[in-house]
Amino acid sequence: MHKVPSASSLGPGGLDLTQSFFTPIQNTAPPSSTKGHTKISVIGVGNVGMAIAQTILTQDLADELALVDAVKDKLRGEMLDLQHAAAFLPLTKILSSTDYTVTAGSDLCIVTAGARQNPGESRLNLLQRNKLSGFPSNRVIGSGTNLDSSRFRFLIADHLDVNAQDVQAYIVGEHGDSSVALWSSISVGGVPVVSYLEKQQIPCEKETLERIHKEVVGSAYEVIRLKGYTSWAIGYSAANLAFSILRNQRKIHPVTVLANGFYGIGPGAGGGEVFLSLPALLGRGGALAVTNVHMTEEEAQRLRDSAKTLLELQRQLEI
Amino acid sequence: MHKVPSASSLGPGGLDLTQSFFTPIQNTAPPSSTKGHTKISVIGVGNVGMAIAQTILTQDLADELALVDAVKDKLRGEMLDLQHAAAFLPLTKILSSTDYTVTAGSDLCIVTAGARQNPGESRLNLLQRNKLSGFPSNRVIGSGTNLDSSRFRFLIADHLDVNAQDVQAYIVGEHGDSSVALWSSISVGGVPVVSYLEKQQIPCEKETLERIHKEVVGSAYEVIRLKGYTSWAIGYSAANLAFSILRNQRKIHPVTVLANGFYGIGPGAGGGEVFLSLPALLGRGGALAVTNVHMTEEEAQRLRDSAKTLLELQRQLEI
Amino acid sequence: MHKVPSASSLGPGGLDLTQSFFTPIQNTAPPSSTKGHTKISVIGVGNVGMAIAQTILTQDLADELALVDAVKDKLRGEMLDLQHAAAFLPLTKILSSTDYTVTAGSDLCIVTAGARQNPGESRLNLLQRNKLSGFPSNRVIGSGTNLDSSRFRFLIADHLDVNAQDVQAYIVGEHGDSSVALWSSISVGGVPVVSYLEKQQIPCEKETLERIHKEVVGSAYEVIRLKGYTSWAIGYSAANLAFSILRNQRKIHPVTVLANGFYGIGPGAGGGEVFLSLPALLGRGGALAVTNVHMTEEEAQRLRDSAKTLLELQRQLEI
Amino acid sequence: MHKVPSASSLGPGGLDLTQSFFTPIQNTAPPSSTKGHTKISVIGVGNVGMAIAQTILTQDLADELALVDAVKDKLRGEMLDLQHAAAFLPLTKILSSTDYTVTAGSDLCIVTAGARQNPGESRLNLLQRNKLSGFPSNRVIGSGTNLDSSRFRFLIADHLDVNAQDVQAYIVGEHGDSSVALWSSISVGGVPVVSYLEKQQIPCEKETLERIHKEVVGSAYEVIRLKGYTSWAIGYSAANLAFSILRNQRKIHPVTVLANGFYGIGPGAGGGEVFLSLPALLGRGGALAVTNVHMTEEEAQRLRDSAKTLLELQRQLEI
Repeated sequence: MHKVPSASSLGPGGLDLTQSFFTPIQNTAPPSSTKGHTKISVIGVGNVGMAIAQTILTQDLADELALVDAVKDKLRGEMLDLQHAAAFLPLTKILSSTDYTVTAGSDLCIVTAGARQNPGESRLNLLQRNKLSGFPSNRVIGSGTNLDSSRFRFLIADHLDVNAQDVQAYIVGEHGDSSVALWSSISVGGVPVVSYLEKQQIPCEKETLERIHKEVVGSAYEVIRLKGYTSWAIGYSAANLAFSILRNQRKIHPVTVLANGFYGIGPGAGGGEVFLSLPALLGRGGALAVTNVHMTEEEAQRLRDSAKTLLELQRQLEI
Repeated sequence: MHKVPSASSLGPGGLDLTQSFFTPIQNTAPPSSTKGHTKISVIGVGNVGMAIAQTILTQDLADELALVDAVKDKLRGEMLDLQHAAAFLPLTKILSSTDYTVTAGSDLCIVTAGARQNPGESRLNLLQRNKLSGFPSNRVIGSGTNLDSSRFRFLIADHLDVNAQDVQAYIVGEHGDSSVALWSSISVGGVPVVSYLEKQQIPCEKETLERIHKEVVGSAYEVIRLKGYTSWAIGYSAANLAFSILRNQRKIHPVTVLANGFYGIGPGAGGGEVFLSLPALLGRGGALAVTNVHMTEEEAQRLRDSAKTLLELQRQLEI
Repeated sequence: MHKVPSASSLGPGGLDLTQSFFTPIQNTAPPSSTKGHTKISVIGVGNVGMAIAQTILTQDLADELALVDAVKDKLRGEMLDLQHAAAFLPLTKILSSTDYTVTAGSDLCIVTAGARQNPGESRLNLLQRNKLSGFPSNRVIGSGTNLDSSRFRFLIADHLDVNAQDVQAYIVGEHGDSSVALWSSISVGGVPVVSYLEKQQIPCEKETLERIHKEVVGSAYEVIRLKGYTSWAIGYSAANLAFSILRNQRKIHPVTVLANGFYGIGPGAGGGEVFLSLPALLGRGGALAVTNVHMTEEEAQRLRDSAKTLLELQRQLEI
Repeated sequence: MHKVPSASSLGPGGLDLTQSFFTPIQNTAPPSSTKGHTKISVIGVGNVGMAIAQTILTQDLADELALVDAVKDKLRGEMLDLQHAAAFLPLTKILSSTDYTVTAGSDLCIVTAGARQNPGESRLNLLQRNKLSGFPSNRVIGSGTNLDSSRFRFLIADHLDVNAQDVQAYIVGEHGDSSVALWSSISVGGVPVVSYLEKQQIPCEKETLERIHKEVVGSAYEVIRLKGYTSWAIGYSAANLAFSILRNQRKIHPVTVLANGFYGIGPGAGGGEVFLSLPALLGRGGALAVTNVHMTEEEAQRLRDSAKTLLELQRQLEI
């Protein structure tokens, strides 16, 4: 494990100061209970992984932070760079290793890198290696459209010149081009926007909202085109989910869960499972429930279409 | 200025929702007093600039954050990436421009990029362009050895297995190889370490401390060798200084100030000014005072030697 | 002003340490700009005033906190009790005085005590003394039903076992028995609850909601009956409003504003002004706009009835 | 247990909304692991207990907060008053009961009330009932002189016009008149003050420091004389200790620990144990070690005198 050398390796007298500066209150080690101790692991120290790790550190969400990556030098450099800020932050133990055992005992593992295809490996095998964590489905959560929804809220808020935290608006389904914007459930400060527009007979504003959705879908592409990758917003999104899960906040987030059985999404041919982003209640147990958000028939149909497409893709992989 | 298109540009009916959703309480604009409003500008959106900007945003230090860089696309990409996190953070207005006028009215400008040498420009001219801000010297502060001191504290804390915030230890002088570690004023939880070691007759531990200083000096080089650049720790360091200045914390930080007159540092030949890192009291007025930290004669001499070297370099530039 | 004795009063040599410990960087005082400096004054140091002051201090909302009260000893005791926590908090200047001049330059004055009736003074005079601040109406905000709405959200959230921050629900109108619960705009995670219940044909649940409203109305009475007064929740409520105002959050809060002209509330006989709690957009300019929340005709009528009652009371005072 | 009535008691249809609004992701309950879950109990809801409870809530230190008191109404009133702020805070489960079983599973119990003397009970019995928790001594910590030290730091900081967090200064021994100020280890920003004064030949300043110590000793008395009790500062002090313990901060605090064996404090006649405030390293295991702070022979003697007085008092109780 890449760890700053401990006292004993610094010199023959290394232990003298440590031993004399404090007098232990008892010789036996303190009870090593980990109750109340929070450990988060981040797999992958690329731009996304490090934005997540740094946001978690700044927001003081963990007592222990473990980083894992295959590239040894980069990994150690990132660990040291975080450790050097110790005087500016509450104490957090920061570890790193190329070996996954460093994640043992984590309350949350944030995976920012999938298994890569080995030479000669089929895509099916790859999918299986990425999918099979052995955890029950409510404890494997994709960050899904949590970030897309933040972008959606930001653009609506910017349009109305209000705080984005006062905007309730969901993008659900797939993260990407076929994502579904839930128009009928947008509300600002508790005021449902679409029914408000209908009552006020403001028809053309709907066009504005459609443009906003297009801008959301294009957002990731645009940021990647401009700066080469996305990092900060996904870092905040992941830290936001981590807080809700670890501190048992029972808040509703649009995240990727096992979608079969919700909103008329059936199993695929052969009973295939499909994972889609839906508004879910998050707490310490993971994804606890799916919120029965109102959808128009059109919205629900688009969601089912997404599911069908995904199931078909998966079926092809399995052949 | 790169700003998300405002309502009016989104469509012919763009203003309808905004206009009807709220009823203004009075037609006249609210008093545009900027008292109590905090604006920070970050110049340069490279790895260091963005680590600073993101830490400032996460720690909620500003009401308005302006980014400036010469590379238009990268700049806009970074701005959008921060803006997309709006739903996860308190409201902060985030602006960007290649034009410095976007920084007007800033309480603090953090410059992470110097003026570059123009073709045919002498180094003297470059130095003058970088130096001449027109501000009094107490309002131009270099982050100096604030980060080196955090690394120093981290390594001492790690050695003793205590919180780095309980370690008082300064690296002063130049940021780099000739930096001076103030051994005689290291204390842990208020206990002066060196005199403690002398009283306890633990001689060889001093060797350990020397190794720690070498490790500090080598830290930046090592992180750069491993990951290519440093970013996170300097981001936290700058945010830490920003808090002390903007919130008038009257805290002591080792930062770069006009050093003439302190610790026997005289003016150079021709009365040259020299800027070195010294423990300074920071508050809203900038660097308010220099702390008269105890130095041994050897420590003070090394500081004066640093000053001399710098003055000599500057003298050569001016020829 | 009640201030801890300064150095000079502590002894003849009082200034020595201060003078020698730091060397000022320049003799002239730093620019005393108050831009970016935030000052909050709390008038009244009873249970409510102190809960507010302490929450503001813990949440680090001000650089300077001024307390005013007529009872000199109690006032000084409260100031000292807050000051003694200095080592546990960021630096905040805490002042107190029986003289209102200590509030000069405040960004926000929180009044927890009204002018008391003088012997022989008519109630009309009292009302006028309490009302006439000389500020435009958008800068005089009553905390109104901000707290009632938090209680409402807590009870709905507790019923559904979700986070109260995911519940949008307003109590408007008068703070008290005739307060109006806006059933039609309750939403949870963006899902409008009442229309949801209608679609799902769950009629009796409305009864539950009515009971919750009754519990809200009775809340203050119950807490007063049980512990003698209310303090903590109103402290958090006021700090919440202070944050939205001072940090220009543009968030929607149900607070007391000049209500004439909204939701069909007319002026009283003789053009009387009436102040009621309505969902308002708060920012640095104060109450910036009133949100056009959907109300059923019944809800709007109850609001207008409240207004009429208040206007009638005021008319009687003016006779 | 005083808990807001749950859904089922609110009406016959109480469960309908809850049941239909969310679809559970699986029927089985989530794994009820309490790892990472933090519970704090506060015993006694008087001024001190509630200042502690409220500061813990504002600083978001616990996922669950349990209040215990013998006075049922007051207890329920305080619980409701905290619960009503739900919309302004992250979700924290707040419970209360007159029965200690509500504290089961706590990571930290903060006792603000001792057992009272029963009619006819000897003082010896009372002492034993208060002392015998059954926990090892490193897990029973008195808040001791942590607050006295904050007052000491505030007054020194106020004298020098610096941030109290940059002042290292300990009051140790007994909490009260015979408390010992450790002059020789006062440092500001890492500069030892007394040796600094000696080097600078500023003799009379020591007088100032003596006056400051007297002011510290008188502080609690003065606040009690002025406002009737102390609350806020002890609330912050307890929350500060809670953070260091629960988040394993390994910070040094002057708290009450079993003092025998430190600084020449021997056992009393018959091997009596004595508890005094000493600078101790706090972490998840409780008080982990005592820091070997330098004391002058005079300071150490005063500490031993305190110990002797206490041991004598205890011996009398035991007769």
